[in-house]
Amino acid sequence: MNGSDNQRAGSTVHGGCPIGIVSGGGSLPFAVAEAAARRDRRAVLFALRGCADAERVAAYPHHWIGLGQINRLCRLARQERCNDLVFIGTVVRPAVRQLRLDFGALTLWPRLVRSFRGGDGQLLSRVAGYFEQRGFTVVGAHEVAPEILMPEGTVGRFQPSERNRSDIALGLELLRAIARFDVGQATIVADGHVLAVEAAEGTDEMLAQVAELRRKGRIRSSGGVLVKAPKSDQDRRIDLPTIGPQTVAGAARAGLVGIAVIAGEGILAEPERVAQVADRERIFVVGLRQDHIAQ
Amino acid sequence: MNGSDNQRAGSTVHGGCPIGIVSGGGSLPFAVAEAAARRDRRAVLFALRGCADAERVAAYPHHWIGLGQINRLCRLARQERCNDLVFIGTVVRPAVRQLRLDFGALTLWPRLVRSFRGGDGQLLSRVAGYFEQRGFTVVGAHEVAPEILMPEGTVGRFQPSERNRSDIALGLELLRAIARFDVGQATIVADGHVLAVEAAEGTDEMLAQVAELRRKGRIRSSGGVLVKAPKSDQDRRIDLPTIGPQTVAGAARAGLVGIAVIAGEGILAEPERVAQVADRERIFVVGLRQDHIAQ
Repeated sequence: MNGSDNQRAGSTVHGGCPIGIVSGGGSLPFAVAEAAARRDRRAVLFALRGCADAERVAAYPHHWIGLGQINRLCRLARQERCNDLVFIGTVVRPAVRQLRLDFGALTLWPRLVRSFRGGDGQLLSRVAGYFEQRGFTVVGAHEVAPEILMPEGTVGRFQPSERNRSDIALGLELLRAIARFDVGQATIVADGHVLAVEAAEGTDEMLAQVAELRRKGRIRSSGGVLVKAPKSDQDRRIDLPTIGPQTVAGAARAGLVGIAVIAGEGILAEPERVAQVADRERIFVVGLRQDHIAQ
Repeated sequence: MNGSDNQRAGSTVHGGCPIGIVSGGGSLPFAVAEAAARRDRRAVLFALRGCADAERVAAYPHHWIGLGQINRLCRLARQERCNDLVFIGTVVRPAVRQLRLDFGALTLWPRLVRSFRGGDGQLLSRVAGYFEQRGFTVVGAHEVAPEILMPEGTVGRFQPSERNRSDIALGLELLRAIARFDVGQATIVADGHVLAVEAAEGTDEMLAQVAELRRKGRIRSSGGVLVKAPKSDQDRRIDLPTIGPQTVAGAARAGLVGIAVIAGEGILAEPERVAQVADRERIFVVGLRQDHIAQ
């Protein structure tokens, strides 16, 4: 509560004020920018150096910021009248010695970098709180661009079988049971056996590990489904489970037959590419109806 | 129920009939054999070729059997009058083409090999059931040799701190929450964050993975505790969580500060070596009191 309520009062998610997109790697920052454009809302990219795709960034109003330049981010965002900030895209954590931290960063940045990767619901809320104390509103990418959310039904042409559906149900049940531990957002289930539970390693690493176990002959059951669901207490503005073409490719390498996400509770990056890769790898990608969760 | 009840009637765990120790790798088969000897009970090792330590096997009455020679195992065990069978030690799953399966093995062995590794409570019971149908009694190694069980209190000279104890409590709570999913027996917790949950990969791989994530700078919290507890529904005769010197070394490589196991609910292999390695690596190894679980 630092007297900046007057600034915040004017900002609404669908309002006319420009939206600041703090952009990591991958295609999602641009999907959000396009969604804003479709709604006639100006978007300014605050592109993270070493993360964001420079070629694509160039097509939008943008500023480059280094990981670690939090005061600079705040200053530029104010200049651009971006009261609403979206944090989106992947960030590879740099070695601390490579960071040039400004004053704001000294207190916050390490936690912020972590927040991009997910993995800590409480910290995410603190990061959002930090910017809100400085007069900004932290907005979920899916609030600005609902079209990036996982749709209901299948993406691509393959469908889960009955057996797959029971693996999905088991996976969702497991994720519900561990949601309060602020642990992973994903699990891999094959023929009623839980092959992996995501924690600090993240989804891509978990898939790579199952691929490796399969290569070594350490897993007998074939097939399997990757199930992703948001943690119950995570800050959904910053960290919704995301799948994209590389998730599908990783699932294929792990010998899985499908991927299931709760519709509207996860982000689907590059839907066309996802459908392409899924069809090529004969993998289903399904957005589950919300009432599936309540079962 | 194949009319062999007369054979079984004579066998009790502490009885005088010889005990058959189906022996995989590591030191535990010999710890069990020594324990039997201390109780004046004859032990015969059925040493698994490619797994058991040939030099040490030679010191005991023994027969070598190939992975896959189940009928041979049954025949030799009957010859040796071993009504009670213990399955103990590590088994690396061979490529199927390397197995020379006999008739009994064709139906059972793939599941049996898996059972050595743990990971499937139902299958373990089925394996035990297979041998019991053939007139044998499958006995837990810890029933023959209670001295191999994890004792209460610390092994070595380091003690868990209060912070470590709260990580342990969180880990136990998580393991309880997932016990019904027949998933891992272990988790790694650091400063209230769950870093890893064991599933198909096993404890050693899980430790290696956390070591790797730390090396890449993907884990911010330091320290951490490995917590192991038996799955609620697993067949404890065949698969109790086990720690040994290599677990301690793996925990050290993963940057952990300690290991916690429920006393009496896990096996401690080579206690002196565990204490040595733990002291050298400044790691605590603690057997928790049973009532810790009920908290």
